[in-house]
Amino acid sequence: MSDRAKIIETLHNEDSFYIISHMLPDGDSIGSLLAMGEGLQRMGKEIRLFTPGKIPYKYKFLQNSELVAHQGFGNAADITTIVLDSSDIERLGEFKDAVLSSKKIINIDHHVTNQRFGTMNLVDSEAAATGEIVYDLLKELQVVLNESIAESLYVAISTDTGSFKYENTTAKTFRVVASLLEYGLNPGAISQRIFDERPLSFYILLKEALSSLELYEGRSIAVMSLSNDIRIRSGASTDDLEGIVNYTRNIVGIELGILFYVESVSEVKIGFRSKSLDVSELAGRLNGGGHIRAAGCRLQGDFQTVKARVMAEARKMLKDLKT
Amino acid sequence: MSDRAKIIETLHNEDSFYIISHMLPDGDSIGSLLAMGEGLQRMGKEIRLFTPGKIPYKYKFLQNSELVAHQGFGNAADITTIVLDSSDIERLGEFKDAVLSSKKIINIDHHVTNQRFGTMNLVDSEAAATGEIVYDLLKELQVVLNESIAESLYVAISTDTGSFKYENTTAKTFRVVASLLEYGLNPGAISQRIFDERPLSFYILLKEALSSLELYEGRSIAVMSLSNDIRIRSGASTDDLEGIVNYTRNIVGIELGILFYVESVSEVKIGFRSKSLDVSELAGRLNGGGHIRAAGCRLQGDFQTVKARVMAEARKMLKDLKT
Repeated sequence: MSDRAKIIETLHNEDSFYIISHMLPDGDSIGSLLAMGEGLQRMGKEIRLFTPGKIPYKYKFLQNSELVAHQGFGNAADITTIVLDSSDIERLGEFKDAVLSSKKIINIDHHVTNQRFGTMNLVDSEAAATGEIVYDLLKELQVVLNESIAESLYVAISTDTGSFKYENTTAKTFRVVASLLEYGLNPGAISQRIFDERPLSFYILLKEALSSLELYEGRSIAVMSLSNDIRIRSGASTDDLEGIVNYTRNIVGIELGILFYVESVSEVKIGFRSKSLDVSELAGRLNGGGHIRAAGCRLQGDFQTVKARVMAEARKMLKDLKT
Repeated sequence: MSDRAKIIETLHNEDSFYIISHMLPDGDSIGSLLAMGEGLQRMGKEIRLFTPGKIPYKYKFLQNSELVAHQGFGNAADITTIVLDSSDIERLGEFKDAVLSSKKIINIDHHVTNQRFGTMNLVDSEAAATGEIVYDLLKELQVVLNESIAESLYVAISTDTGSFKYENTTAKTFRVVASLLEYGLNPGAISQRIFDERPLSFYILLKEALSSLELYEGRSIAVMSLSNDIRIRSGASTDDLEGIVNYTRNIVGIELGILFYVESVSEVKIGFRSKSLDVSELAGRLNGGGHIRAAGCRLQGDFQTVKARVMAEARKMLKDLKT
């Protein structure tokens, strides 16, 4: 019997479940969590929802998001826990040990790096989002969807595909979303909220960042810089810093984008972005880390010293690639 | 016989067609033009493609885009011309009279404001893009699509929906795109090119636009302004203007976004964006037009006079809505 069949059987046979998704919740983890929870409720199951991190403001409009608990998991020796969108158990943070105490663990995920930590594992790295897998499961369980489940799945899938712009987007993704939209969703209003809207302070900070834009190495490196002082003067919060660095990468011809954020006279935070280079390696050389196309580090020193050091490493990386 | 049936019949019966779409070509007009052209070619028709404006760089990767002519339409008394994505005949610019001299005009469009200027009119304002209508027509004509037609239609539909984020996006849109992706498209690579990447000059122009940002009516109207002089000084092309206006709408709390583009001392082009209001009505009051959430107009006069007039209409519209 395949793990998938065992999972279906378990979801049919047991009466109550804990469901949890990863720390630093994103649209896929929250959307999948809410959809799975409400779907099982519609099958008459008792469910409790958890995440180790607080839900970002932009996802709080999702129905039932207020029911997601951040504590009180307790001992789960008598219960089966469904873990969603988490490539390994460490991503459950402080819930790790409690989850490991569960009677059974159902691990449902789409990350290619998933560690198969569950009693049963349903890992499909072809799926654009965990939400796509949850959709299939609910269909197989013959759950009749409703607007709120459809909305949660829409958020899960649209956020993990960058509104259907990332390479993971497939024909199936579009087919699933087409059927979700039949439940009366308004993709325009949801997308505006989760993708496009930013506070005024973000745009004021963006203006400052663009004013600092410099190009290096025959226009292949774009550098922007901001300081804590400029941020405060712009009326911007530290949240507003998120996303600014992406503007470096989106310039035609740029191979490497860098944002220097001068936190104090002796500390600078640096973000790296690329469309084609492994910036996690560059960040690593500077005692930082991250993903292949988005990474960062934090260095001690004044801005000019730090900048010189980072630019030397950046130039070296580009040169190594070209020889 | 419905106009739609007449159009199908004409496309079957005649041997050659001119196909044209509107000035200031966008993804929908170019994608629809190329897909319609190649589709009819696959039916054995002779076709010639025209647009009154040059094709923006980011769409030049589309196969056959180099075949689109910008002159040489000549006298079309013996030929049927297919006009795509053009709400009125003025949108054909210098081609207007030549097109009007055609034996017959087939007008295919999705703009709610379409003037039905054709001998036969197929106007479906429920369609997210003219590309969606062209897809249906090609299916009805039993044209077997290929990767290049599918890619053109994908670009048409994805650009006119802002990568499936605008309110015009429907379940049908997703179903159509799902079937287009079956032809082997790579939505990730195409999207990076048409949505995320912008030339450096765009960002320099954006900085200028953000520097001009003003809020009105209790922060519900955002206004930005640029001039031809500022654009030239920024090293930006007129292409770079596209997309700037959207930044007004993306500010949290803004109901109406306006971009004034001062073309000369006596002419101002105005773009309107909203998340919730019918800006095509506002544009209409100022002799312009467009879509419900994205519209524009062009007014004679110096900047201050034009701005005063537009702001008065804008305030009036907001006031009317609130009473």
